[in-house]
This record gives sequence, C-alpha cells and structure tokens, in this order.
Amino acid sequence: MPSSPVANRRYRGSSAEERRAQRREQFLEAAIQVYGEQGYRNATVKAVCEAAGLTERYFYESFSNSEELLVASFQAVMRFLFGELEKAIAEASGGPVERARAMLTAYYEALQGHPQSARVFLVEISGVSPAVDQALEASLHEFGDLIARTLSPRGDGSAASDPLLRAGVVGGVIHVALKWISSGYSQPLHEVVGAAMRLCLVLRGR
Amino acid sequence: MPSSPVANRRYRGSSAEERRAQRREQFLEAAIQVYGEQGYRNATVKAVCEAAGLTERYFYESFSNSEELLVASFQAVMRFLFGELEKAIAEASGGPVERARAMLTAYYEALQGHPQSARVFLVEISGVSPAVDQALEASLHEFGDLIARTLSPRGDGSAASDPLLRAGVVGGVIHVALKWISSGYSQPLHEVVGAAMRLCLVLRGR
Repeated sequence: MPSSPVANRRYRGSSAEERRAQRREQFLEAAIQVYGEQGYRNATVKAVCEAAGLTERYFYESFSNSEELLVASFQAVMRFLFGELEKAIAEASGGPVERARAMLTAYYEALQGHPQSARVFLVEISGVSPAVDQALEASLHEFGDLIARTLSPRGDGSAASDPLLRAGVVGGVIHVALKWISSGYSQPLHEVVGAAMRLCLVLRGR
Repeated sequence: MPSSPVANRRYRGSSAEERRAQRREQFLEAAIQVYGEQGYRNATVKAVCEAAGLTERYFYESFSNSEELLVASFQAVMRFLFGELEKAIAEASGGPVERARAMLTAYYEALQGHPQSARVFLVEISGVSPAVDQALEASLHEFGDLIARTLSPRGDGSAASDPLLRAGVVGGVIHVALKWISSGYSQPLHEVVGAAMRLCLVLRGR
C-alpha cells in the first residue's frame, strides 16, 4: 500500500536488461498510483504511461495487457505489505498473541494510510479475471500461513493447520477491513484490531 | 441457490399488471439458470431471453440492463436462501448452538447442491458495479444479523453487537465456503460446518 513500494532499487549506467527492468518498475509504481487515484477499471494504459513518463511501446515491452500489469502491481504491493507485517512481528515484544496483535495493527494501519490503494487491491480487483483471482487466492493463502505461524510458533497448532479454518480466519480479517473501509474508517484502530484478534485466536485451538 | 426459487407464484387469467409480473419472474428464473451455466459475464441478454422464452422487448419492460437483472436475480436467490436458513433454524431442536449449526449446515448444503449458482452469486459478482456491490453488502449484513440473532437469543450479546466482529464472522463463513468450492468440495460437510461454527462462536463473547 505504499506510494512507492517498488522504487527502492536504482539502476546505474549499464546494460539494456537493467534499463528494461527499471522501466518495468516505473510502470508498477505508476500503476499503483493511477489505480489508487482512478480505480483499476477507469485507468487506461495511456494514463499509466503518462504517470510513468514512458511511451506505450515500452509498456508492451513488459506487459501484454492491463490485466498483467494489475497482477504484477498487486504482487508488488503484497510483497511490500507482507514485508511490513513480518517486520512488525519481528519487532514486537511478548509472546505469539502480542506478535499477532502487532501484525494486525501494522496491517490495518497500512490500509488506513493508503485508503485508495486499499480499495483497489482489496475490493475492486476481485472478479476481474481468472489470473487476477488466482493472484488474490495465493495472497490469501500466504496471509493465512503468516497468521497461523505467528500464533502457533510451537504450540500444538492442530486448529491452525485446518485449511478451511485458516481461510475462514483470513476472510474474517479482510471483512473486518472491508466493513471498516465502508464505514469511512470510523472505528478507532484498536477496536478494529480487537475484532480481528478475536477471530485469529480461533486458530489457537479449542 | 435453487434451480427455481422464484417460480412459486402462478398467475392465472387476469390483468396486464399480473402478466407483466409473471414475465419478470420468468426472466429472474432464466437469469439464475443462464448465469449458473455460463457465468454472468459471458451471459447475453439474448441468451436470457431465449431461456425465458420471451423477446427482448419484454426484457426492457422489466429491466434497464443486465446489471439490473443481476441485482434482481441475486436478491431472489438470497430471499430463497435466507428462507431456507430460517426454516432450518426453526426446525432444529436444542439451544442456540444447535440452531446455529443447523443453519450453517443448510447454508453449505445449499451451496453444494447448486455449485454453479454458488460460483456466480458468491464469487463472480463482486466488483461488477457499485449497485451490485451494494446488494452484496446488504446481504452480508442480513447474514450477520441472522447469525447473531441465532446465537444470542437472549444472552448478553455484547460481542454479537459489534458490527466489525459480525462482518468478520460473516466474511469467515463465506471464505470457508470459497475455500471449499475452490477445493472442489473435497472436505466432508461436517468439517466445513465445524470450521464455520468455530468462527461463529466468537460472537458468544469472551
């Protein structure tokens, strides 16, 4: 959800391959910005190219179509987001429950800090195409893994390993976010995290 | 999710208004069938008219466009589904937990019994348009109400009244369904209901 999650690497001088990789990242960055401002369905390739400061010829060097750019930008945002969550977990003091709380806090803070991107990558993109749905599903699975790992570092983990329950917990965490977003972020962060924690704790077993 | 949830009423003889209402129901029924077979995005107005045995002129008598028919058919399916859930609750013996279990069993049985409609009305239709999203959100809210009412008929209900937690529980129940659907309904029904129950019980308080 950052304004610029993919702009970290800088390419200097060097090969055609490196310049091509840099242009690809410029497009990802531009896509996140343009989709956030206009929504994915309203955004044209032209608008993304303008924001990237590159021509359409370069667009088609890296992507076959808008949908491919959407998947790539979604994945870039998710990589950034999961990095933030891992960081929050690593920096939290206390046991699994405190670490899970720190992770959820980081998650909802990221959504709140980037409401436009949150809308695009959480709400708008489902149902765009099978490829996009697959990318979404993979990220739900990864999120479930992360929650389960955080909450049962060496507990019995019997509940945490049920794929249906994991999927349910992740769906719950996301629908708490959707409700929060649709209410204009009206509830305070700690209540949002509190509701999500109640759902996550189901993974701690009976 | 029935093959024919809206074909109960029969109109005999009578007024132009009644015949018009009957044609509207024929379109709803045809839409549920055609969307189930082809998916909403692949279904044309023409295909729906053919399935209804009516001309496009009659289509535009009742609906401005496909999206309006989608919302109306979604609402018809949801009315039927919630009716089934209420019936299961009323017929269940035992306390709130047993009634909730009976309701969830009826819910997942309905999805399993009508996998094509389940895909359309649970997966495909999100992100179609703001009007469709609004209809979806209203049905999520109604589902949350029903679960909370079933589980806390006169308990303290403090957890059940938190709108964020309710939304989270409903999201959980739905994502259990999505996971089940994407795995080709591989887990037995009682495991699916068991996972969903664990999430619903969060509404019973600390």
